Parts: sequence; structure tokens; C-alpha cells
Amino acid sequence: MTTSNNLFQFEIEAAEGNARAGRFHTVHGDVITPIFAPVGTQAAMKGGITTAQLAEVGANLVLANTYHLHLRPGEDLVDELGGVHQFMQWHGPMLTDSGGFQVFSLAQMRKVDEDGVTFRSYIDGSKRRLTPESAIQIEEKLGADIIMAFDECAEPYDHRYSLAAMERTHRWAVRCKAAHSRTDQALFGIVQGGIFPDLRQRSAEFIAELDTPGIAIGGLSVGETKQEMHTVLDQVNQVLPMEKPRYLMGVGSPEDLVNGILRGVDIFDCVLPTRLARHKAAMTMTGRVNLLNASNTRDPQPIDPECGCYTCQHFSRAYLRHLFVAKEPLGGTLVSIHNLYTLLDLVRRCRAAIFEGRFTQFASDFLANYRV
Amino acid sequence: MTTSNNLFQFEIEAAEGNARAGRFHTVHGDVITPIFAPVGTQAAMKGGITTAQLAEVGANLVLANTYHLHLRPGEDLVDELGGVHQFMQWHGPMLTDSGGFQVFSLAQMRKVDEDGVTFRSYIDGSKRRLTPESAIQIEEKLGADIIMAFDECAEPYDHRYSLAAMERTHRWAVRCKAAHSRTDQALFGIVQGGIFPDLRQRSAEFIAELDTPGIAIGGLSVGETKQEMHTVLDQVNQVLPMEKPRYLMGVGSPEDLVNGILRGVDIFDCVLPTRLARHKAAMTMTGRVNLLNASNTRDPQPIDPECGCYTCQHFSRAYLRHLFVAKEPLGGTLVSIHNLYTLLDLVRRCRAAIFEGRFTQFASDFLANYRV
Repeated sequence: MTTSNNLFQFEIEAAEGNARAGRFHTVHGDVITPIFAPVGTQAAMKGGITTAQLAEVGANLVLANTYHLHLRPGEDLVDELGGVHQFMQWHGPMLTDSGGFQVFSLAQMRKVDEDGVTFRSYIDGSKRRLTPESAIQIEEKLGADIIMAFDECAEPYDHRYSLAAMERTHRWAVRCKAAHSRTDQALFGIVQGGIFPDLRQRSAEFIAELDTPGIAIGGLSVGETKQEMHTVLDQVNQVLPMEKPRYLMGVGSPEDLVNGILRGVDIFDCVLPTRLARHKAAMTMTGRVNLLNASNTRDPQPIDPECGCYTCQHFSRAYLRHLFVAKEPLGGTLVSIHNLYTLLDLVRRCRAAIFEGRFTQFASDFLANYRV
Repeated sequence: MTTSNNLFQFEIEAAEGNARAGRFHTVHGDVITPIFAPVGTQAAMKGGITTAQLAEVGANLVLANTYHLHLRPGEDLVDELGGVHQFMQWHGPMLTDSGGFQVFSLAQMRKVDEDGVTFRSYIDGSKRRLTPESAIQIEEKLGADIIMAFDECAEPYDHRYSLAAMERTHRWAVRCKAAHSRTDQALFGIVQGGIFPDLRQRSAEFIAELDTPGIAIGGLSVGETKQEMHTVLDQVNQVLPMEKPRYLMGVGSPEDLVNGILRGVDIFDCVLPTRLARHKAAMTMTGRVNLLNASNTRDPQPIDPECGCYTCQHFSRAYLRHLFVAKEPLGGTLVSIHNLYTLLDLVRRCRAAIFEGRFTQFASDFLANYRV
């Protein structure tokens, strides 16, 4: 447990080039960076993964989605039951997004105005509304350690729309900061601006100026190329203050983690490890493995003989393939465990390499061996 | 690990009335009775339960289904990968049924003759055949510690059919014993005869005479009343030799376990705990709980405040209900853990009560408090 005098400070313990290894202090313990945050969308991991199993794969920071929890079971119920940590029984650091991304990407019939967004619930069709103030109020009731400002995530290639969305995101960020009252939560502002250097520059400057305890980079991994993502990261991270943690939202393939850390990112989240597992694909340090491939039918080897996860320490590819063919949910569970472990092991290795001054070489070797 | 000089001996450590507490020695360790065996139909527990979680709930003996594994992935593949223990990574005692029950209850277009049964695979419609000899050959390749004779499970109320099925089951049991060659596996004969006292008497005498290391009681929990089941158990267990373990197949509700142990049963198996969990129902020592009930919506209490399982030690009824409403697989996983723990805790309590000479009172109190 951290003491209040360093709450929400980010200690950079080691750095190499733009890459950093650090600790962000929260009341539920330190976020140890660089880190990948598994996503428990509805306050539950997909694939039947328990929080005990999350701890076993080495999770540290865990994310839940404000949009989904607002619609079901509702923030009042979560609050009444002691907040999201108690509700889902994750006692380490937690993060909630603001619902902005889901409202703009998932919500039916959304209508944006200066004050907020009106949309229909995908569950019962009821009319709902989120504003910067109500999003913060919901996040305060959910009670995560890190909460996000309510932003507008635009389609990345439309300069006119990206400009308007970015400017609204800035006005909303100011309102979010004014609305936020819980001192045990860190509010992060979000940099937007699509793929446009002029917009990203302005947005990074504006959000840096807002002086939130951490800063997120939004609007990436939404259709742009890897090169475009890297250009944005290079540019934004030159502007952002060194002493604040940087969170790249919704990004989580192994090569994206390494490329992000190379460019100064500290925190990542993504549904990819559990989603891929449901689709019978395993992540490895050298690329993806489709477990349904006939080549795995009689293979007594694990997914990755060098992996230390529960799944690789026990189960053959042949068994995992059998589970998928037989439609046994255990297949998705075991491969989720492996995929989560792989990403968490990767960020641990990156962190160790930064401490030892060999991260540039590590990243270069990793990316050379990785088949996208 | 047991030594070969007591392999497949059943040591009765304590008894009270007809109830017994004992140990059946196998090369993968002792089956500690009375015991409930969770069912891993396709060499996997439903609900994404890992074998590590099975060990945590206190499982001892685990069952897999010959019929399902024969059809997919096939016994040759399981054999090639080191047998069913290695395949699914359960290193304690294992049991396989013979496929008889599934062929008669699930198989399409089955045709019985004196030599065996022809049926179509539910997976690909291909024509398949099981005989006593081929069923044993499959079970030898799967490699469980306890294997079952190939039997014919008849509809329980037809005396003529029950008689014919019983007599065929006896002839097949003799053939199974002759076909069985692995000395590290115990073959159990199966008593049949529907609800008919004359048939059950004859069948128990015949199977006892066959002198297999353990004896199963089949053809129950297939539509008869509880009273009819108890009458059969009372009768059969008077005939069966004291010194052999008795296995009541396919039975596993809490009250059935207690009633069975009262009547001299040592081993049970059933898919009920994981099936109920998928249907949002929790087993408790006093009856079933439907977690979807609105009364659970804001309930911060666990399923059973006195239960020691992972689920009850951590999660509220409100959270479990949320998981089911939100269609999160974790709901079924957590309630499966609870249900399996409940049955295994119940048989542990029965065993302790037998050792302490208070089982009759325990059973009486339990059944008085249990709401069916």
C-alpha cells in the first residue's frame, strides 16, 4: 500500500532511449510499467478466467468498461456492493475507460451535441445519455484507481471531423477535470487528432497543459497503418511530459507492445488475448498459432515449449485442438491463460531489458523474429 | 503410489450400519470413499474448469466417457499421447465408462444383436460398432484405472426387455472379463435389472460371482422414483460382497449421495454439478438456489456463507447473477466450482461422520433439512 505523499506520482526507475520502466502509485498498489492491462469488459474476464487465474498469469492493472457496466448492472449497484474492485474481486490497481470509445464505435443511433452524446442501449433499446459530467460520476461510483476523461474518438482519416472531435474532446476534458472529485482516483486526459500531425501536436500540448496525473493516447488501432500509428506515437511522446505515465488505449498485439514501449508508452490494454483465444489462436513471442491447424492433431508439444504458463506447462497442442474441435469451453480458457501470460511475460521482459540497458537490442531482435 | 501387493484391494477403514469409509488402491493413488467423481465427458470438465481447479475443489476420482472419446478424438490418439491421464492432465485415479449407457441413450439408429451394437456417430453420421471386446480394447487404450464392462441399460419399467437386457449384460460381462488384459486397470461388472426385484437379485448374484475388483449398479436415475431407487440399492447391496467397492452410476444430487451412502454405496458420478451451473443453479447442503432470481440482484452474500469454496470465499450472489444476466462464461465457471466443491465437501463430511460413528444421525439431519 502506498502512502498519500506519493499517490499518483510516476517514478521512472530506468530508461533507455524513449523506453521507460517505472511505478505509478495508487491506493491499490503500484502499476509497474511497462504494463499490459487485461480487459474485464463487464467486470469479468472472458473465457471463464477467474481473478485468481489473472493473478497467476501475472496481471497487475485490470481494466473494466464504464459503458458496459453503466448499462448492466448499473454503477449504483456496483457502488452499493463496494465498488468494482470488491464486485469482481480484483484487489490490485484498476482502470475504467469513460465509455466514449464504445459510444462512438458500438452505440446505435448516437447523436453528438456540445453537451454530450445520446444513444440507445444495445440491451433494451432504451434512450441513454452520457456527458463529461455523467461519465465522471459513473466512473466515481465504479471506483477504479485510474479513470478516463470522456472523449470523442473520430474516424482517423477525416481531418475536418478529427479537428472538430479533438476540440470537443479538449473542452470535455476540462469539464471532466472540473467534475472529478474523488481524491483516490487519478483522472487521465486523452490525446486525440486522428493521423494528422498538426492535430496530434495541438492535442498533446493541450492535454499536457491540463496537467492530469497521466495521459492517454486515444484514437489509434482503429484502422490506420502501423507506420501511421508509430508516427503519431513518436510525435505525441515528444510533446508529453516525461514525468507522466502514457497509456496507449486499445492496443495489445506483441509487436505493438514492443513498438509502443520503444516510443515511450507505459501502459497498454486490449481484448485481443481473450478474443484470439475464443477464435482458437495462440499468441507467441514469434507470431500467432492457429490451434485448429491439422498439423497440431497429434502434436504432443505445448503451444510454446519456452513458455512458463499453466497451459504450456501441462497441455499438448493435440489436447487443445481436441478441445476446440469438441467445442469444449476449456479450450478458450486454457488459451486465454496462455495469451494473457504471453503479453504479461513480454512486458516483464521489456522492463528487465530497460533496467539492464539492452532494450533497444531486445526490441530489434524481437521484431526481426516476429511474423505478423 | 500403492504397491502391487494391495492393488485393487478395498480397505474398509470404518463402517456404520450399511455405510462404509474406505480406500481402493490404484496405481494413480487411492480412491478415498465415499467419493463423488466429477465427469470430464470429452476428457475436459465443462465450464472451463481446469484440472488445477478440480484439485482445488478436492476431486479425487475423475471420470471420462469412452463413447465420446472413441468418436472424438479417438482412443488411438489418446493412447499415442500417453493415455487419458496425461492427455487431460489429471494425475489422480480415473474411471471410464464403457460407452454402453451413451449408445443406448444417445446414439441414433442403434441396432442391438448378441454380438454388440451398431449405431451412427452423432458427429459425422458414420456407422460405428461397439462390442464387449471392442469397448474393452478402447478402454485399455484410454488407460483409466477403473474401467467398466459393456452393458445394456434398459428402460426401467419393461420386465421383458429388462430381463433380456440383463441377461445380455451378463453374457457381455463374461466376454469383457475375458477380453481384458491390462493388469494396471480394474474392470468393474455392472448390475442391471431395472426396478424388478427378481432381476436385480439375479443380476447382483451373477456379477458378484464374476468376481471383478469392484461392482457397479447401473440403470438407475433413468426415470424411476427415489423410492424405487432406494429399494433396488437396499436389495442389491445385501447381495454384493462387503469387500468390493460399489459404484452407483450417474447419480449425484446431494440427497442421492446421502441416501446412497446410507445404503452402502461407495462411489458416485454425475454431470449434475456442472450442468446445473450452466443453468444458473447452485447446489447447497439444504437445496438448490436459482441465481437468476431477482432476490439475488443486490445480495452481497455468497451462495452459502458456510461454504469454503473459492466462489463463496470471494463472490456475492449479486455478482454471480450479473455474470449470468450479462452472459459471461465466468458465471458458469464459478458456480461449477461451487457445485463440485459442495458435493466433494458433502462426501468428506459423510466419511468423517462414518469414522466417528455419527453418520446415521448426520444423514437423518441432512435429509430433514434438505428441500428437494
